[in-house]
Amino acid sequence: MHNITMLGSGLVGMFYTKTLHGLRSRDRVSVVYSRTEERVRQFARDWDIPHWTTDMEEAITHPDTDVVVIGLPNHLHEPAVHAAVRAGKAVFCTKPLGRHADEAKRMLDAVEEAGVFAGYLEDLVYTPKTLKAIASTRDGALGRVLWARSRETHPGPHSDWFWDKEKSGGGAIVDLGCHCIEISRNFIGKDVRPLEVMCWADTQVHPIEAEDSAVGLVRYASGAIGQFEVSWTFRGGMDLRDEVSGTEGTIWLNHWLRTGSEMFTAAGEKGYVSEKAESERGWLFPVGDEAGALGYVEMFTDMLDSLDNGRSPRETFYDGYVVNAIMDAAYRSAESKRWEPVTLEDWRGSESLDAAAQMTEYDADHFLIKEEKMPDGTTKLILKQKSTGAIVQKAL
Amino acid sequence: MHNITMLGSGLVGMFYTKTLHGLRSRDRVSVVYSRTEERVRQFARDWDIPHWTTDMEEAITHPDTDVVVIGLPNHLHEPAVHAAVRAGKAVFCTKPLGRHADEAKRMLDAVEEAGVFAGYLEDLVYTPKTLKAIASTRDGALGRVLWARSRETHPGPHSDWFWDKEKSGGGAIVDLGCHCIEISRNFIGKDVRPLEVMCWADTQVHPIEAEDSAVGLVRYASGAIGQFEVSWTFRGGMDLRDEVSGTEGTIWLNHWLRTGSEMFTAAGEKGYVSEKAESERGWLFPVGDEAGALGYVEMFTDMLDSLDNGRSPRETFYDGYVVNAIMDAAYRSAESKRWEPVTLEDWRGSESLDAAAQMTEYDADHFLIKEEKMPDGTTKLILKQKSTGAIVQKAL
Amino acid sequence: MHNITMLGSGLVGMFYTKTLHGLRSRDRVSVVYSRTEERVRQFARDWDIPHWTTDMEEAITHPDTDVVVIGLPNHLHEPAVHAAVRAGKAVFCTKPLGRHADEAKRMLDAVEEAGVFAGYLEDLVYTPKTLKAIASTRDGALGRVLWARSRETHPGPHSDWFWDKEKSGGGAIVDLGCHCIEISRNFIGKDVRPLEVMCWADTQVHPIEAEDSAVGLVRYASGAIGQFEVSWTFRGGMDLRDEVSGTEGTIWLNHWLRTGSEMFTAAGEKGYVSEKAESERGWLFPVGDEAGALGYVEMFTDMLDSLDNGRSPRETFYDGYVVNAIMDAAYRSAESKRWEPVTLEDWRGSESLDAAAQMTEYDADHFLIKEEKMPDGTTKLILKQKSTGAIVQKAL
Amino acid sequence: MHNITMLGSGLVGMFYTKTLHGLRSRDRVSVVYSRTEERVRQFARDWDIPHWTTDMEEAITHPDTDVVVIGLPNHLHEPAVHAAVRAGKAVFCTKPLGRHADEAKRMLDAVEEAGVFAGYLEDLVYTPKTLKAIASTRDGALGRVLWARSRETHPGPHSDWFWDKEKSGGGAIVDLGCHCIEISRNFIGKDVRPLEVMCWADTQVHPIEAEDSAVGLVRYASGAIGQFEVSWTFRGGMDLRDEVSGTEGTIWLNHWLRTGSEMFTAAGEKGYVSEKAESERGWLFPVGDEAGALGYVEMFTDMLDSLDNGRSPRETFYDGYVVNAIMDAAYRSAESKRWEPVTLEDWRGSESLDAAAQMTEYDADHFLIKEEKMPDGTTKLILKQKSTGAIVQKAL
Repeated sequence: MHNITMLGSGLVGMFYTKTLHGLRSRDRVSVVYSRTEERVRQFARDWDIPHWTTDMEEAITHPDTDVVVIGLPNHLHEPAVHAAVRAGKAVFCTKPLGRHADEAKRMLDAVEEAGVFAGYLEDLVYTPKTLKAIASTRDGALGRVLWARSRETHPGPHSDWFWDKEKSGGGAIVDLGCHCIEISRNFIGKDVRPLEVMCWADTQVHPIEAEDSAVGLVRYASGAIGQFEVSWTFRGGMDLRDEVSGTEGTIWLNHWLRTGSEMFTAAGEKGYVSEKAESERGWLFPVGDEAGALGYVEMFTDMLDSLDNGRSPRETFYDGYVVNAIMDAAYRSAESKRWEPVTLEDWRGSESLDAAAQMTEYDADHFLIKEEKMPDGTTKLILKQKSTGAIVQKAL
Repeated sequence: MHNITMLGSGLVGMFYTKTLHGLRSRDRVSVVYSRTEERVRQFARDWDIPHWTTDMEEAITHPDTDVVVIGLPNHLHEPAVHAAVRAGKAVFCTKPLGRHADEAKRMLDAVEEAGVFAGYLEDLVYTPKTLKAIASTRDGALGRVLWARSRETHPGPHSDWFWDKEKSGGGAIVDLGCHCIEISRNFIGKDVRPLEVMCWADTQVHPIEAEDSAVGLVRYASGAIGQFEVSWTFRGGMDLRDEVSGTEGTIWLNHWLRTGSEMFTAAGEKGYVSEKAESERGWLFPVGDEAGALGYVEMFTDMLDSLDNGRSPRETFYDGYVVNAIMDAAYRSAESKRWEPVTLEDWRGSESLDAAAQMTEYDADHFLIKEEKMPDGTTKLILKQKSTGAIVQKAL
Repeated sequence: MHNITMLGSGLVGMFYTKTLHGLRSRDRVSVVYSRTEERVRQFARDWDIPHWTTDMEEAITHPDTDVVVIGLPNHLHEPAVHAAVRAGKAVFCTKPLGRHADEAKRMLDAVEEAGVFAGYLEDLVYTPKTLKAIASTRDGALGRVLWARSRETHPGPHSDWFWDKEKSGGGAIVDLGCHCIEISRNFIGKDVRPLEVMCWADTQVHPIEAEDSAVGLVRYASGAIGQFEVSWTFRGGMDLRDEVSGTEGTIWLNHWLRTGSEMFTAAGEKGYVSEKAESERGWLFPVGDEAGALGYVEMFTDMLDSLDNGRSPRETFYDGYVVNAIMDAAYRSAESKRWEPVTLEDWRGSESLDAAAQMTEYDADHFLIKEEKMPDGTTKLILKQKSTGAIVQKAL
Repeated sequence: MHNITMLGSGLVGMFYTKTLHGLRSRDRVSVVYSRTEERVRQFARDWDIPHWTTDMEEAITHPDTDVVVIGLPNHLHEPAVHAAVRAGKAVFCTKPLGRHADEAKRMLDAVEEAGVFAGYLEDLVYTPKTLKAIASTRDGALGRVLWARSRETHPGPHSDWFWDKEKSGGGAIVDLGCHCIEISRNFIGKDVRPLEVMCWADTQVHPIEAEDSAVGLVRYASGAIGQFEVSWTFRGGMDLRDEVSGTEGTIWLNHWLRTGSEMFTAAGEKGYVSEKAESERGWLFPVGDEAGALGYVEMFTDMLDSLDNGRSPRETFYDGYVVNAIMDAAYRSAESKRWEPVTLEDWRGSESLDAAAQMTEYDADHFLIKEEKMPDGTTKLILKQKSTGAIVQKAL
């Protein structure tokens, strides 16, 4: 059982607390911190938390807790991590780890040097369907992974600081792209080095400085492409979908709008439909277990079980650092309009991977390119002659 | 925190134990019982359970536990309940409560007379999307509920006793219909009396005595119809879907095959795809969190929280008894080939409900029947003259 | 090339004319009839039809046409058929053929005695996906067909006469059930005799005499069940779905709301969304080719090609008669509250069909009931001992 | 009525002929040409075509036809167009128009100088659901279009010449990207100039010189992005999906695998499932009307009706030229690894379009950035102070 200090009382703090207190949990949030006294008192009352404070240091060093969860605006992650390290407590930090790779690297170094347990709260990697899909991919159901698209778009975030580039470090890329990039890494393989990034970013709709839309391609050493699509301009709710292609298979995951729950109402849904829903009448697509669908439940289970068992969690500060480095390259590419290398001074994965397309032997003289069943019932083969390289077809 | 005696080490005992031990739970299964020593030893080892026994009485009276969970074949529910009552422990019983209403009524009376806490483990009512849909329905999003279809079909159960009518009490109706009936009751209103049942049942495929397919209609005092469709002959995996219609809206729930997780694999899925999946190659539809999708997680949370807080759980032995009474009428109807009344000597809900269709006023002289936008852009009204009853149409 | 007399200028007449004139068709509607001069003039102008009249006899006998298409209210089908027979012209009649089987039988006898070509315009059997599914079923992809559900529900029809029981012959059963019944017959086999019907029908919402909701089960000689679900109370648009189960497979068809076209609009769709759509904002589900999705295109192609080639169309007046006989039994059952036999004085299909469940041999001593892959990776078999009938399980 | 010369007897020639002869069409293919006598004789026999030849010139100048349809490998489009122009006949050319923009421009100039009717057979723009979605977009249902993704992937083409870069002009981009690019242009507006392209392309799987996978972004003068995703490596069948986002709405179109037709078969589908399907057992997703789903039916209707009425068809050679110019830039970008300008010496659309994000006024002092309903029922506003640019939030 753990007693937890929760830093932050916004939407993410609320979701985290709800999850930590949820179901038949043996863990509790015992201290909560927020800058504003009125908010933090209310939060402590709503979630039955014994201690509250507007002093972050006090919250972190409070003798009743052994874990610090950071659910603060991005520019406060680094000071909070350092304070937790000084207090010698386990620290879990919300996504993105830093506003850029330098900040993330300092946090990584701090926890590693001090030897405190640290977890990166990348929740979307932990949705049950994602975990199962990653396991199937690892077991070879897709063959060699070629491409992973992760899309997260909605009409924009709910707190002011997200929209302020200085505090957040950027727009939709920093807010949402961090999820997409890490999802792709999990499918492509964390051991595979991200080499370079091409990214388009624009402020298409909102009167802000940061980008509200972006599409990026991350090229990995295996030849695989991780594609991220993020936007604060999407209409219709929240769109969370992943698609993975491999030489032997395909995975499509839908996390939000089309997950088997559909409602038409002329009367109107009086309650809350789901996060970022845009209508209360007509066809609605509620999500049953939002915390589960977003991965919060499995994420905290992994973090706390790992802490108990002295093992590394699935998502570490090192992963957060890699994601930040990829996002940095994305921002550079959006400026330079060309592919930009991913700078990783500290790379811990494999150095070389063979990405060569493998030839499938058809017979002594030919490679098989493909076969297809035709409308007339015949099967057609496309072959490549080994000696000449000529391409020929053959009907069976 | 509770220590639990698990009776039964089959698939349901395994799912229950996995759920009770799952995530960051503070509850534990401390004793497990099964008839076969080899099985129960293995089960205790697999799930890290300190005590095992092949003596049911010993399991129930074991001093370390305060809750008894019954995950046994249907014909053993009643003796197990009586033993738990004698031991003065809280008792949770899997579905169906009895093989018929008489058996269920005796169990209900036993727990009520003894004053022990009792919960009916009707898991499918507890899926997060079902709970949310029921709440929306209660809040009026569908208007007056008219019809609720619940369908549960798969290629047949995985244990021998299910197929033996004496032990199970019947076939697909008793095995699956109990879920469907209780789901419909939750949408239509538990307070609304089930009046009569019309049911078709047949043994279409398997060489057994009990029915392997059935469709039934339950007519409620409000005029609403609860429709159940059950089968042990379905091909393609497990089909769990609910549809609810009301005067103002519609809900469609899909719990299994189309919930946002799709995989094509030519290589083959080496692991377990999902319960009752029938293929390991081609297009597969894995379910991420099976225990969650089946309602186990929320169900045990409600049961144990209710026990802790001295309140009645969402699903009680009384509900189990009503479901059994409806199934009894279904079996009678399948024999008599006519509607059969539901016999409830102990009815605790409302006695009369006004089911009259309400008239919508259009103007002083007409009721509105309906309006529709036509392909040419006009709107057409169908009206009923109050004085003559004549039906007329009007284009706007 | 054919010149056609169109009887009726309502929604169905419009859809029929649009289809007959559509794409690169070589056929034309040359004469149109409607009771009201203003309507029929406008219709002729809209669809560029050279002749119009308010005299039905004149329309039918007009020398420029060789085919009569009946798109009139149900009570006018019979006189129109007799007039077409007298004129010696080919006649295509919209669904249902009659208001009851007697009326249908007189129409059937009339065209057969006169030897005129007659087609039954049961469009939903002709949707491209239905035709393909029926062909797959005939080819054995589902094994033996066990159950076919056809559902057609929407918020109610768009013309006054539908709501008048005298003119229509009934409510949702006669309007929509005729489609569902014939769809099931196509999957189960037209050669298989429908034996009896159990039907619930009620007036749940609208202030009318006829039923606005019904569910019925039709039992066929093969043991298969055809299930129809019809309603004029459904909210959310039009729900057209079919489900078919067989010993070897399953088919699910969705014809309207979930066919790959999804739109969210906050601005509003200014045009026509689709037939019976209920909203113009929020999530909408437009249908691209409505006439194609409803089967009109393939239906008229079959009718006119059959006429040209002297063969019987897929849907004949005999089929219309069988459907009426089944609906008559449904109405009797809704009254009597028991299964009612289908009365077919003229049955042209097979007299007996073997519905016995077949045993699958496992080994010399056992039949196989089922096998399933378990979560722990083992495979479990349920077997029946041939000698004793006992059911046993076995893990592989 | 038109008599048509069909050039080519491969899969596209077959689909075109089937469509032109389909339903109740008044048009006929009267002459067919193919290089191989055996093939062309068989094709003429299969499709009941009176004349066949292995001499292309003879086919084009045959006195019985007035329209030439080019269904040949890409490198033969230009000579065929010139021959049709010399013969003074209407000419419809399959996609892509040329292997590059220079070739396309020469074809465009040839038909325009000669004044012959010319149509570009970009079928996927003509699917009924696409036509309806484009119309809704034009009517403002999506507001200002921001992004259009078009994806076409499958396991690779069925004829040898596709795989030969010299004959085809490239790989998946030239084969599939031409569809995607033109679909995006239709949503974004054909009047809006494509400015530059960023493209990744790779040969990930097959032993060929051309790319078998590519992702590209096309930036338009309005600020909108057209995204194309193409591959010959996809597993699971054919994936044809479009997604469009605008300031007021979203459109999702699925053309192939998830269009309301689902079949599970353990017995196996003996017939043809659908183009590029990869399995015959398990869950299959047949497409009812393939020619309709691919847009062929509406495409030829538009082409021939436009020819009859002396108007320009929806898709012209000019469109084909623009698509080629965009693909040329995509290939340059895949080489240079930077954004490359689209070179259009002949631009006929609008020269400047205002892409500025518009400010939504909240009150005298603030612009509205966004509003969202929160889980606790409150509504949160994100505002921008006009004077300072500061971002603030406000709960209602």
